[in-house]
Amino acid sequence: MIVYFDNSATTVVSEKVKDIVLKAMIEDYGNPSSMHLAGVKAEDYIKDAKKKIASIMKVDEKEIYFTSGGTEGNNLAIIGSVMANKRNGNKIITSSIEHASVSNPMKYLEDEGFEVVYLPVDKNGVIDLEALKNEVDDDTILVSIMGVNNEVGAIQPMEEIGAIVKEKNPKTLYHIDAIQAFGKMEIKPKKCKADFVTVSGHKIHGPKGTGFIYIKNKTKVKPLILGGGQQMGMRSGTENVPGIAGLGEAAKEAYDNLNTNVEKMTALKDRLIDGLEKMEGVTVNSKKGNESAPHIVSASFLNVRSEVMLHALEDKGVYISAGSACSSNKPAISRTLRAMKIDDNLLESTVRFSFSANNTEEEVDYCLECINELLPVLKKYVRK
Amino acid sequence: MIVYFDNSATTVVSEKVKDIVLKAMIEDYGNPSSMHLAGVKAEDYIKDAKKKIASIMKVDEKEIYFTSGGTEGNNLAIIGSVMANKRNGNKIITSSIEHASVSNPMKYLEDEGFEVVYLPVDKNGVIDLEALKNEVDDDTILVSIMGVNNEVGAIQPMEEIGAIVKEKNPKTLYHIDAIQAFGKMEIKPKKCKADFVTVSGHKIHGPKGTGFIYIKNKTKVKPLILGGGQQMGMRSGTENVPGIAGLGEAAKEAYDNLNTNVEKMTALKDRLIDGLEKMEGVTVNSKKGNESAPHIVSASFLNVRSEVMLHALEDKGVYISAGSACSSNKPAISRTLRAMKIDDNLLESTVRFSFSANNTEEEVDYCLECINELLPVLKKYVRK
Repeated sequence: MIVYFDNSATTVVSEKVKDIVLKAMIEDYGNPSSMHLAGVKAEDYIKDAKKKIASIMKVDEKEIYFTSGGTEGNNLAIIGSVMANKRNGNKIITSSIEHASVSNPMKYLEDEGFEVVYLPVDKNGVIDLEALKNEVDDDTILVSIMGVNNEVGAIQPMEEIGAIVKEKNPKTLYHIDAIQAFGKMEIKPKKCKADFVTVSGHKIHGPKGTGFIYIKNKTKVKPLILGGGQQMGMRSGTENVPGIAGLGEAAKEAYDNLNTNVEKMTALKDRLIDGLEKMEGVTVNSKKGNESAPHIVSASFLNVRSEVMLHALEDKGVYISAGSACSSNKPAISRTLRAMKIDDNLLESTVRFSFSANNTEEEVDYCLECINELLPVLKKYVRK
Repeated sequence: MIVYFDNSATTVVSEKVKDIVLKAMIEDYGNPSSMHLAGVKAEDYIKDAKKKIASIMKVDEKEIYFTSGGTEGNNLAIIGSVMANKRNGNKIITSSIEHASVSNPMKYLEDEGFEVVYLPVDKNGVIDLEALKNEVDDDTILVSIMGVNNEVGAIQPMEEIGAIVKEKNPKTLYHIDAIQAFGKMEIKPKKCKADFVTVSGHKIHGPKGTGFIYIKNKTKVKPLILGGGQQMGMRSGTENVPGIAGLGEAAKEAYDNLNTNVEKMTALKDRLIDGLEKMEGVTVNSKKGNESAPHIVSASFLNVRSEVMLHALEDKGVYISAGSACSSNKPAISRTLRAMKIDDNLLESTVRFSFSANNTEEEVDYCLECINELLPVLKKYVRK
């Protein structure tokens, strides 16, 4: 039995996504910048994907730009906005639990001389709104806070953040890294007063190497990639038409089935958490029900190192992740868990299970069985 | 009859490329950064693609990095190298016939205070080596010259350029934009003394949204996209595994069949040029045989505007390009043709035919027939 519980790392493409990728790759393979019919047909895929996404997010189609993925989107939103608006101030606010594709651009901007403030989070991984209120000031160019944390599934109060930011300084830009949130809940940029929202394709059963960014109309941004002027000059380079078509389809499917999917994943999550909480020495770092994202369970196994649990479960055919698994083969101590003040002796013993709507209760039960069987054995090998 | 003569804009993926993309998308869809078997399998596709490309170019596998396409690669080579090596000088040398993905990063660097020198070309579109010799000096950080011009197919003397650059200043970096050259001739970075070579996937029957850059070992480069540290930190973001696998396969196919393909395309080129040169009022801007790239024919039709010819041929099912067609829907006067000192009255009357090895003699003959039929009619509509 193969059980794939690493859907926050990446997902398989859906049947419909596969079909449209293939069609755009084989039949309608033109360059959307070409003036002949093959070019026009290719451009239609882009228009159609844009329309699907804009309609889901209730924004203007012109506010959607395609990227090569979530990382590029986050770099564009952060570096591109700060560089284009540096006259507005010198301060940037983010959280202490961001993904590396946010925290590393932040480090870059610190090196460039900007002040970056890292907001603390509570024990559930939710940022401190009072701290945010105290920090946003006349000097603040940008606030960048993820919608859902990738390691524990904590949901940030996106609307409240937007309201606070814009009340304190209407000029401050607000970016939501929605890479783990999109497809798992409604993401409405206008309601959140967001200027940027970034999304990745391969986290929602779309193709790898795809993503999009919502950029509020008239927002000043310095493009990262210059060239032929595609996408209104915001992102040059021949558009990845099959990828974009697949992304549009994946987004549509995610939102056509949002309620069913969320219900299903939440049931799986709660079932896994219930099972884990019955075990000795297990601490669950994610909340049940709608208090955290439906697809992520973080759990710490006292005295069992993350990699040991990961590989033991792998032997049983269950694929999970140690830490965030979005970073490249570098199992470093998680900044998220540290910021949540998880017990020191659990930091290196934490793993992540992450679902898609393709997973089943049987898979959860099998996974729990495996853990039950493994735990007593693995604890024997503790280094004292 | 549909005749696709716009292969310099983009190509259809090959059967084998399609197959491997599908396999990596459906069966082995893991995240290469994941530590379990699904991740390891995904990583194997990347290693395999890297091996294929490194073996073609006779370079170390560690010198190959994957990008989202040629435009990103050119931006990384140019902006990334200049920003990382600005202590070496303030001068950059390029040609006056570069693609927008080179010339626009150059403009950006000019705005940042660097001096950019644009070398002239002769009437065939080949850069002036004496001018290069005179310009490379102690202050020169980077020389960036394309291998094959995308509009007329002019081949630049890549090895001679490298020899001159390194002789004049061993610290000066040399970048070859090989987007139109790769797959059409041997590209050996070491022989050319190149520090950077950029390639795009979708120009060689690989997937859109893919590309790679050769970066010579130990060369200092400032990454453009920061995040999880994938690809040794040079290009963060979950790798587009299906795309990379497809790119590797496309590169392999291009070089497994290099001689046959080049012979075939050269025959098509010469056949088209011969036909065109028999017509009145037609000027061919590309050279026959191996004096220019095998796949590109630029031709000017006196008193027929490019778009008019393009759409008239489109009606007959023949897809060609007006100008470079790599830029986004902006039919501006070509810098390349101007630099080649093409007659002013031909500048707006120039189109490009571009082949792949899938094209046939019958298609060339059909295209020539169509043009013969169209020319007298189209000339009637000349604005006097």
